[in-house]
Amino acid sequence: MIKRFPAAIQELLDQFARLPGIGPKSAERFVFYLLSRPPEEIAQFGKAIESIRGRVQRCSVCFDFAEGDPCAYCADSGRDQTMVCVVAESPDVLAIEKTGEYRGVYHVLGGVLRPTEGMTPDRLRIKELKKRVEKNGINEVILATNPDIEGEATALYITQQLRATGVALTRLAKGLPMGSDLEYADEVTLASALKGRRSMNGA
Amino acid sequence: MIKRFPAAIQELLDQFARLPGIGPKSAERFVFYLLSRPPEEIAQFGKAIESIRGRVQRCSVCFDFAEGDPCAYCADSGRDQTMVCVVAESPDVLAIEKTGEYRGVYHVLGGVLRPTEGMTPDRLRIKELKKRVEKNGINEVILATNPDIEGEATALYITQQLRATGVALTRLAKGLPMGSDLEYADEVTLASALKGRRSMNGA
Repeated sequence: MIKRFPAAIQELLDQFARLPGIGPKSAERFVFYLLSRPPEEIAQFGKAIESIRGRVQRCSVCFDFAEGDPCAYCADSGRDQTMVCVVAESPDVLAIEKTGEYRGVYHVLGGVLRPTEGMTPDRLRIKELKKRVEKNGINEVILATNPDIEGEATALYITQQLRATGVALTRLAKGLPMGSDLEYADEVTLASALKGRRSMNGA
Repeated sequence: MIKRFPAAIQELLDQFARLPGIGPKSAERFVFYLLSRPPEEIAQFGKAIESIRGRVQRCSVCFDFAEGDPCAYCADSGRDQTMVCVVAESPDVLAIEKTGEYRGVYHVLGGVLRPTEGMTPDRLRIKELKKRVEKNGINEVILATNPDIEGEATALYITQQLRATGVALTRLAKGLPMGSDLEYADEVTLASALKGRRSMNGA
């Protein structure tokens, strides 16, 4: 009795099933979707995956993924190279870029502190950040890790590590998100919004 | 202002975002997951996709995806080659195999009738099924499309097309699924279960 797909299909299923959040059923959908596509399109997809590591690497200054080294941000003299925004992962860089409000550069930590999962300080690029601050005349470090337990702990840890350098350390403001309803805000967020209240006198 | 990922990343994101049910956020998760993996693993994934079309094709008898032609089912003299189970798509074959109850062969239609989406009878492999039945001494055709509107319509259409051949045409039984609760069964299922009730006298 054959109870498995042909080996080639099963192998591809197993590959897709390794992607985060993808179970066997979704993997199956992907594989049979691909099999329904023109061969050129399938080949293009495969090549895009195969070539990604050769086309993209981490910038040696900020550790964001980029096609060149240094990356487009670190190489841009039109950006404020004395202001460093520290983020956990590469996609966070794009999130901040999309605000259109930031003209400094970045530093990608490669995660946040999670000691229970083996994410200790030495596994984040904190040493590299400290070296950057000590060497390069950085004026301000914006700690832009997520406003959750791990993100807060990471920001606090980095603050302690960089305090001696004398650099200005800031943290993204916490408060009510735009378009939200005060009635349904959680109390920690609401407390942050109260504590961080801003003057309207000049408005 | 750069508001997109590097081109290589964006291209791969676009590829992943074409997969069924995958939006830009999931695609992003996949790409950065891949970038975190060893280069050999990434290359292997890419190659598995690239090579799939060369390693797998449709069996010329039953149109299931297989590594050989005819497929392992159609080539197996231990299986009843006079009994053909008609399914909509390739994964349905495996679903039936997993029951361990079926020892005949298959016929993969390539979909079900959905005239509003352009899935008309000529786009399904109904002509090929008819030819098989007329030529090969088939005794029974089991119509195993889904018990939903399109599946029922497809089964009915095929019945009409094959009636003249005199072959025995059967349909999978409808009724209450194992482990379900009668109280919460929908009325159409319950009506089917009543109509299809089976004698317990011999049990």
